[in-house]
Amino acid sequence: MYPTRFPRNHWYVVARPDELGDRPLSRTVLGEAVVLFRGPDGRPAALADRCIHRSMPLSLGSVQDGTLVCGYHGLAYDASGAVVDIPCQAQVPRGRQARSYPVHAGAELIWLWPGDPERADPAAVPDQSWLDGDDWATVDGTLHLDARAQLLNENLTDLSHVAYLHEGSIGTREVAKAPISVEVDGRVVKVFRPMPEVDCPPFFTEVMGIGGRIRRGSVAEFVAPGYHISHVEAEALEPDGIGRCRHRAVHCVTPETETSAHYFWLIARDYRRDSAEVDQLWQDGAPVVLMQDVAAVEAIETVLRRHPDHPPEINISADAGSLRAREIVEWLIAHD
Amino acid sequence: MYPTRFPRNHWYVVARPDELGDRPLSRTVLGEAVVLFRGPDGRPAALADRCIHRSMPLSLGSVQDGTLVCGYHGLAYDASGAVVDIPCQAQVPRGRQARSYPVHAGAELIWLWPGDPERADPAAVPDQSWLDGDDWATVDGTLHLDARAQLLNENLTDLSHVAYLHEGSIGTREVAKAPISVEVDGRVVKVFRPMPEVDCPPFFTEVMGIGGRIRRGSVAEFVAPGYHISHVEAEALEPDGIGRCRHRAVHCVTPETETSAHYFWLIARDYRRDSAEVDQLWQDGAPVVLMQDVAAVEAIETVLRRHPDHPPEINISADAGSLRAREIVEWLIAHD
Amino acid sequence: MYPTRFPRNHWYVVARPDELGDRPLSRTVLGEAVVLFRGPDGRPAALADRCIHRSMPLSLGSVQDGTLVCGYHGLAYDASGAVVDIPCQAQVPRGRQARSYPVHAGAELIWLWPGDPERADPAAVPDQSWLDGDDWATVDGTLHLDARAQLLNENLTDLSHVAYLHEGSIGTREVAKAPISVEVDGRVVKVFRPMPEVDCPPFFTEVMGIGGRIRRGSVAEFVAPGYHISHVEAEALEPDGIGRCRHRAVHCVTPETETSAHYFWLIARDYRRDSAEVDQLWQDGAPVVLMQDVAAVEAIETVLRRHPDHPPEINISADAGSLRAREIVEWLIAHD
Repeated sequence: MYPTRFPRNHWYVVARPDELGDRPLSRTVLGEAVVLFRGPDGRPAALADRCIHRSMPLSLGSVQDGTLVCGYHGLAYDASGAVVDIPCQAQVPRGRQARSYPVHAGAELIWLWPGDPERADPAAVPDQSWLDGDDWATVDGTLHLDARAQLLNENLTDLSHVAYLHEGSIGTREVAKAPISVEVDGRVVKVFRPMPEVDCPPFFTEVMGIGGRIRRGSVAEFVAPGYHISHVEAEALEPDGIGRCRHRAVHCVTPETETSAHYFWLIARDYRRDSAEVDQLWQDGAPVVLMQDVAAVEAIETVLRRHPDHPPEINISADAGSLRAREIVEWLIAHD
Repeated sequence: MYPTRFPRNHWYVVARPDELGDRPLSRTVLGEAVVLFRGPDGRPAALADRCIHRSMPLSLGSVQDGTLVCGYHGLAYDASGAVVDIPCQAQVPRGRQARSYPVHAGAELIWLWPGDPERADPAAVPDQSWLDGDDWATVDGTLHLDARAQLLNENLTDLSHVAYLHEGSIGTREVAKAPISVEVDGRVVKVFRPMPEVDCPPFFTEVMGIGGRIRRGSVAEFVAPGYHISHVEAEALEPDGIGRCRHRAVHCVTPETETSAHYFWLIARDYRRDSAEVDQLWQDGAPVVLMQDVAAVEAIETVLRRHPDHPPEINISADAGSLRAREIVEWLIAHD
Repeated sequence: MYPTRFPRNHWYVVARPDELGDRPLSRTVLGEAVVLFRGPDGRPAALADRCIHRSMPLSLGSVQDGTLVCGYHGLAYDASGAVVDIPCQAQVPRGRQARSYPVHAGAELIWLWPGDPERADPAAVPDQSWLDGDDWATVDGTLHLDARAQLLNENLTDLSHVAYLHEGSIGTREVAKAPISVEVDGRVVKVFRPMPEVDCPPFFTEVMGIGGRIRRGSVAEFVAPGYHISHVEAEALEPDGIGRCRHRAVHCVTPETETSAHYFWLIARDYRRDSAEVDQLWQDGAPVVLMQDVAAVEAIETVLRRHPDHPPEINISADAGSLRAREIVEWLIAHD
């Protein structure tokens, strides 16, 4: 029902740039252990995290002059995965090579292509150029879920759960009652949930400074197989000097194994952009809300693991977007 | 050898009443995740612990006006398992229904019938009417064992182990040497172990106030598949003003999975019934003794798991009751 | 590739003598749970760690008058495994017997023969008579690795890793560059690594008191299937009053399961033999260095478990001794 395999010939977020410093970084993507490090030019490189000599994880080694040196016997690899030094030998025989992965290093996110390197197309990376310039202030972070990625993909394309799972922070009961419409374009699903007049949730009051009854807009955008933007608008109906506030929550869901995933998030806002206080509110508050989603999908994962031959679930009207998202992922798997 | 499957068409204790308050309670019984909650009349109800919409454990939700509300998208269930509200829809389609389980709520124990609901017969619940009235003072508690239930069932029908496993609390070496007799009646096994003159164990001195040489009586009663009463009598042979003291230790063993179980216990005594001090001695002391049994059967479980093709065990004379108990459980499994 | 099964008809170290006191000791060897205890003469005995009555681990019992008494129902075993007492019975039927294992108790190490007892030959125990007398001062200890034993066997026969894994303690980069030669004699492999002039590593300065440039000698000796001696010599090239220092690191690798092992170590030195300070330096320092090896092989084990159909590894010149060691172990397995 929920796919656990994922298509390999796509870009997946593998790290945020500030996670990758002077030391190698280990991360498993679609079941493959990958080591990231910065080459001599500072650009991120990705290799299979296993020395071709004695299978030591290269992530336990060190970076020296832009090469990745194994911590066991000292074999050194360049960014292409070629072995460039074997300390106990005068020469390195030809063809000594670790698997390397195409990497696309954006300003906010580092992407990895786990599939056929020949097919890696930088143009297929979801566009984040809207983040360039000064329009948006951002905070970000990395979480992990012990649950299959698709559960989070469907959570993020059905925001009716906000009314229950996030009650008391970003949700109010009215959100679940708002009707939705769904648009599909290629591998993109958009779920529109306009709320002309609803209560302002507590966390919006904190970060935006508005309250009472508000006009609230929500568009959940999914770019298969794992990139989401939650577009949020809020405007007080009682004029109080504060106009429309917008933020975009970027969620990147990267399968780690068949039943676990990495969760990279970024909140970009167009209000109070220079406020360190609002930065901190979001930096602290976003993980609290997102971990409620993580806890929910992990609880569901536990149920699914106990019942591999799971009885069919029923669907409700709020699922329209999630079901389209699932169809697209299944199509991508079948046509990988 | 030791059965791990258990018969489903029987009553099993699922909780003590004070474990079930205003919040739902999750408990796995015979491999099935069950959620308990109190309906509008306060009576316990039991459903499969899985929302029929997106498989969220219902035990992570809340009880509102006697309905169980899923914490993910707000679907509400009544005590029969029927969905009575879907927040994002005006109507609930017919036939939306979670599995429900027959429940029998006694004064001391809540029982669940995991089998065919049509066959659930309240008359088959073991009689505890002897606990009504003021004859007995009680303390109780809940433990868990990471071992197959039958190991504890056989522990409880062979109390010769008291001499070694519980030495220093309720056991003395003489207990193991006392001859036993066994009676079987339907699904009930009784093992009689009269001890006309033995040392008083330390814990009896604490709770009863007797000591020295005593007449000790022990009847281990097993009602298959998981209910036990250990009937205990003790009387000082040197008259000291204290007459015969009796207590009954009720042990309820409910398989959780094939290799783990819930262990509900209750100690009823007819002496010093108004003593808060003796209440506390039993409330603190009983789990210490019972956890010695839990530790023993968990150690054995570890051995059995390592050796699935376990060599035959040898039997000794003290095993007569346990072997009959095992036969009955095997018969119930075969005729479930 | 790396064998996980191991030959059974060999002596394996099961404990150091000071690990076995008045209480029984549980240790799993080649997948079999063994309990060790001292019989009436103080000599170590080894039985299967499972009561033949109800499968209770005998290691949870106690030693009384040189018999091992089960903690559950009190069955008593002698050093041969024969049941000598059943408390609830007047008599012990004939033939009640737990499996026993041949044991060879040396001064420094206790050895167990997990295979056919008829084939156990004390003459096959590796000779440690060189430790008798006053030539050597020793410290020792026991470690555990969550990795297949053979990974540590090959680590110990290729000491080129000292240059990287143990840099800053016993390793310097020059060690990896020193050429080696290999000798094989029966089940013994010796790897010679003379280093006529290299830097003195920091830990040698601490324990030997030498420094600067030194002549360093290293012979890695492996006696299959799990006994190693690392013969080490060091001598300052700039005469400073301290002559040649020698130590021998004895490493005993005993498979616990197919993918875990016990690691018994002993460091014998011929310098500063009466120095409690040097004793302490070695007692504290050896586990630090050896745990670097444990961490490395455990990291590799994790890689191997994730990839059961592991791609072939490449070999380098330093592997010559390790590859011979592997061949011998494979031969012993095939001819067990």
